[in-house]
Amino acid sequence: MKMSHMLGRRTKQDPSDAKLKSHKLLIRGGYIRPVSNGIYSILFPGQKVLKNIERIVREEMNDIEGQEVEMPLVQPKELWEESGRYQSINDELVRLKDRNDHDMVLAMTHEEAAVALARTEAVSYKDYPFMIYQFAKKFRDEARPRGGLIRVREFTMKDAYSFHTNQKDLEDYYAKCAKAYSRIFAKAGVPEVVAIKSDSGMMGGNVSHEYMLLTEGGEDTIITCPDCDYKANKEVAVSEIPVENGQDIDKPLQKIHTPNAQSIEELSEMLNLPKSRFLKTIFYKPISEDGKPIAVMIRGDIEVNENKLAKILGVSPEFANDEMIENSGAVVGFASGFGIEDKCHVIVDKSVQNEKNLITGANEKDYHIANFNLNRDMPNANIFDVASVKEGDRCVNCGSELKINRGIEVGNIFQLGEKYTSKMNMRYIDENGKQQTPIMGCYGIGIGRLMASVAEVRNDEKGIIWPVSLAPWKMSIISLSPKNGNDTSIDDNAKKIYTSLRANGLDVIWDDRKASAGEKFADADLLGIPMQFVVSPRNLEKGLIEWKERATGNKGFVSIDEVTQFATQWFSTEMDKLNANADNVKPLPQAEISNAPKADNKIGIFRQILNSKRQNF
Amino acid sequence: MKMSHMLGRRTKQDPSDAKLKSHKLLIRGGYIRPVSNGIYSILFPGQKVLKNIERIVREEMNDIEGQEVEMPLVQPKELWEESGRYQSINDELVRLKDRNDHDMVLAMTHEEAAVALARTEAVSYKDYPFMIYQFAKKFRDEARPRGGLIRVREFTMKDAYSFHTNQKDLEDYYAKCAKAYSRIFAKAGVPEVVAIKSDSGMMGGNVSHEYMLLTEGGEDTIITCPDCDYKANKEVAVSEIPVENGQDIDKPLQKIHTPNAQSIEELSEMLNLPKSRFLKTIFYKPISEDGKPIAVMIRGDIEVNENKLAKILGVSPEFANDEMIENSGAVVGFASGFGIEDKCHVIVDKSVQNEKNLITGANEKDYHIANFNLNRDMPNANIFDVASVKEGDRCVNCGSELKINRGIEVGNIFQLGEKYTSKMNMRYIDENGKQQTPIMGCYGIGIGRLMASVAEVRNDEKGIIWPVSLAPWKMSIISLSPKNGNDTSIDDNAKKIYTSLRANGLDVIWDDRKASAGEKFADADLLGIPMQFVVSPRNLEKGLIEWKERATGNKGFVSIDEVTQFATQWFSTEMDKLNANADNVKPLPQAEISNAPKADNKIGIFRQILNSKRQNF
Repeated sequence: MKMSHMLGRRTKQDPSDAKLKSHKLLIRGGYIRPVSNGIYSILFPGQKVLKNIERIVREEMNDIEGQEVEMPLVQPKELWEESGRYQSINDELVRLKDRNDHDMVLAMTHEEAAVALARTEAVSYKDYPFMIYQFAKKFRDEARPRGGLIRVREFTMKDAYSFHTNQKDLEDYYAKCAKAYSRIFAKAGVPEVVAIKSDSGMMGGNVSHEYMLLTEGGEDTIITCPDCDYKANKEVAVSEIPVENGQDIDKPLQKIHTPNAQSIEELSEMLNLPKSRFLKTIFYKPISEDGKPIAVMIRGDIEVNENKLAKILGVSPEFANDEMIENSGAVVGFASGFGIEDKCHVIVDKSVQNEKNLITGANEKDYHIANFNLNRDMPNANIFDVASVKEGDRCVNCGSELKINRGIEVGNIFQLGEKYTSKMNMRYIDENGKQQTPIMGCYGIGIGRLMASVAEVRNDEKGIIWPVSLAPWKMSIISLSPKNGNDTSIDDNAKKIYTSLRANGLDVIWDDRKASAGEKFADADLLGIPMQFVVSPRNLEKGLIEWKERATGNKGFVSIDEVTQFATQWFSTEMDKLNANADNVKPLPQAEISNAPKADNKIGIFRQILNSKRQNF
Repeated sequence: MKMSHMLGRRTKQDPSDAKLKSHKLLIRGGYIRPVSNGIYSILFPGQKVLKNIERIVREEMNDIEGQEVEMPLVQPKELWEESGRYQSINDELVRLKDRNDHDMVLAMTHEEAAVALARTEAVSYKDYPFMIYQFAKKFRDEARPRGGLIRVREFTMKDAYSFHTNQKDLEDYYAKCAKAYSRIFAKAGVPEVVAIKSDSGMMGGNVSHEYMLLTEGGEDTIITCPDCDYKANKEVAVSEIPVENGQDIDKPLQKIHTPNAQSIEELSEMLNLPKSRFLKTIFYKPISEDGKPIAVMIRGDIEVNENKLAKILGVSPEFANDEMIENSGAVVGFASGFGIEDKCHVIVDKSVQNEKNLITGANEKDYHIANFNLNRDMPNANIFDVASVKEGDRCVNCGSELKINRGIEVGNIFQLGEKYTSKMNMRYIDENGKQQTPIMGCYGIGIGRLMASVAEVRNDEKGIIWPVSLAPWKMSIISLSPKNGNDTSIDDNAKKIYTSLRANGLDVIWDDRKASAGEKFADADLLGIPMQFVVSPRNLEKGLIEWKERATGNKGFVSIDEVTQFATQWFSTEMDKLNANADNVKPLPQAEISNAPKADNKIGIFRQILNSKRQNF
């Protein structure tokens, strides 16, 4: 590629609306351009990076016997009704009508289409297992697109779907795919990506992992232990919460006057006590037919993790309004689950369990009650872990202090089980001639997001520093202006090198523009080309070419006759390093792959209580 | 690829809804599956063919300095309002609202997005020329999808857009691109594709060509001359229409009684005269403010080409209703433009010019007028060519009888000029510091349609016969059942060949299924794999492998040690043939590339008449 006619202006100024480094640099480098909110066009250098990522992903998917397919973006609503997602997904799923007034959707993922494709084809146990994958456009109408390509509405994903006749086979394949994922990230130059066991959310199923690239620019919060292997998304992370008020004597309950102190902050200030000395109660809307709200009691300095709560309730919790709270006998601002256990369903967080003499609401205006002791005062409470992990919490495995990190999810893998196959009536005939429902795994990587994520962690003040595997061009040839305007030797030599490198299979860009040396150097750095060769009048006289490695800043000279050999050698060494990283990836621990144990029996009992109330209503 | 776990059943039965060979064979071979009307999923073998086409197209686009980009499918309506197409395109353009109630469209082509992308980047004459291209999903809500992948609603196109500062540069690039297109079709195994100068229709601009693969299954009609280079789409084709009634004496007008004979067919039967003896008049809705309809007079055996008529009128003609016809003084069923010239705008087709004594309507119920002679009776008529070419017409260049063929449009190229750049305010600064509007070309190839088109012309009763360049696998290894169930030598040898061919870079499929020889042979033929190697117990004893070439049916034996060498040699010979075809393509004639002469002056005068009527209204 000659740079003179390359479309895409490079700029020194950061775009005004960009906060993330990757967003700024991809715009400044002429990689991407916004078309609409969360919708981008990709310019030539960006498209080359995307294609390089695609090539790496395809290699690894083919290596685990993936069959590349293509499924449509525009789909009839009937497919999504079969899975139930036409009803359950809200505005993120774009609905439209075609010219015949038929309801269609823009697919935001392809589980439905994959099952629909496979169910007419894989009808015998002999056809299993198999995996199909695609690189396909999706549209997800995100409420808040952000960060350039980090969170967009239209995007290309590699999504893969495997089908199996038994759980063991699914788990084996899941492990293979997990390894392929680690290899992909290693080859893409970000071997530090970690697999984190996650909540599978909307996708359902039991076991799933998110692949996280830890960086300040991430929108996910990941809890890691610096001393053992523990790592988890904040949504599901567990921790030991150090006991703060472990005094050994249960003091008697005592009503205290706390005029106008309606929040933990106000109480904490009025009484000059730390927040952890208090017991707060959060009310959620009723979900049982008895109409009683859910009251969650938790230590004053800890936030409720609503994802954990949702798993207990079986539905997403929503805050109760003041009327619901008052109806349960509580007084807003001075509320407590204590004393109104018969008028609401109380859940007590485990953070309260070993604390002594906490201060809780009196359910009376301007009053609180001191010296609440759970074991004494509410001995039959339903105790669950509904706490958000916070700074200072300890690892449940090794007791070390947990770290709270930000990260970008660059991939995910799910054991879906029969969630989709069952709803969509996919069947096969087993060895004994009986109909069975196959089970499924699915595996995603956002191609554009991975490009942006790598840019987010591989850069300096001058621009992006692409890993050689992803770089749009592996090398750039920078030809400087001759001293004498008629001297063509600079361009002649640059062209010779350009031609020779290309003939040796190296993807090279030649900055042939009539521009200043400064502009050319700055653009090469901003674009992030891994190796630069400078053809300058001064060095050419000595038969030398200057080289500079973008990542290290290392520089040196090579004789013009040896440039090709040098370049080829350098390139293969760099690629070897990435491949070596890929060959050294660790498999997922077997314990993380096995289907999770059944939900906590306590949850079952609690849900029965909710249900029995429903019966008695 | 081992066939045992390949997703996609192959069947002997034709799908009931398929008419085209390619549609039947792509379904039967497990290449594609319908998801909705005109929307398909592509299975692994199909995806491999598509990727092979994509690779060929990418090579050729890169060779003419194309820069691969990616533009979004979901676009804000504002882009399409700028070009005017939000208003001018009807139901084919899918409109939808996003979650914020913003009007969006699904792009059916990317001129708007290309201009929007380029106009902020290419601001100086130094940035020109350049070409950007993509392989991108599009959605066109076709009223009548048909023929499997031939005409679908969701599809992937290679679309390319070039930008230039002057017409000469555009024409030079257009020629380059035309050559690249011929090379693409040659490499894809269909060198017979012809470039036909076409009407650019909705895309606007002056010069354009369609690349047509002639086949009975095509939906376009192409007129070709067997003796000279003349070829044209029916929409714009011109011809010499042999004069049928060239008697030399103008007879006097005569009213004849033709009770109830309202159509040319009825008249022809009643009077026992050929249809060419009549002069019919077709009425179109008024387009001038005087409210007078357009009356087109044409010989009775010839159809009006409404595309030609549209070019004269400047808008698409629509049929007048009976009321409009009667208002102009005509009588439906017995109408003629003759005698009511003051109440309608009459256009006479050139087919009438040299005919004598035609029979036309009398504008009176149950009467016609015989012996109409244009030169005598309507000496000032506006004569135009609005005739559809028909069987028996002669070539305007050489007089030979024209052939009427069916064809599939597999690609097209357009000189758009400043149609989009001007409307969308794209500007650059020229050498003299002045603002100028760049001009544009665009170049499309439907990837899926090309796959189907090749299948449509390369097949036999057994299945598809893929050109080696497109074949999903270049070779298949068919291992037959051993005589003795415990004998593993068949599978061992098949695996050895499989491994060796793959190690030599050949993409091979191994039919490792436990299935009958007949089923395996039939599937290999149906899939259309170009070369088959059969590992059978009988021949293996002699150390031989049988080979069969799919296209020719040629068979032979090769010793097991020489299979790899034989296969490599065969493959490179086949590829060389295709590449030689590509190197021998003929450029487009220069005369076909140059910007067309201005529209016929007669058209200008006629339009002025319409306009002046508009003024006087």
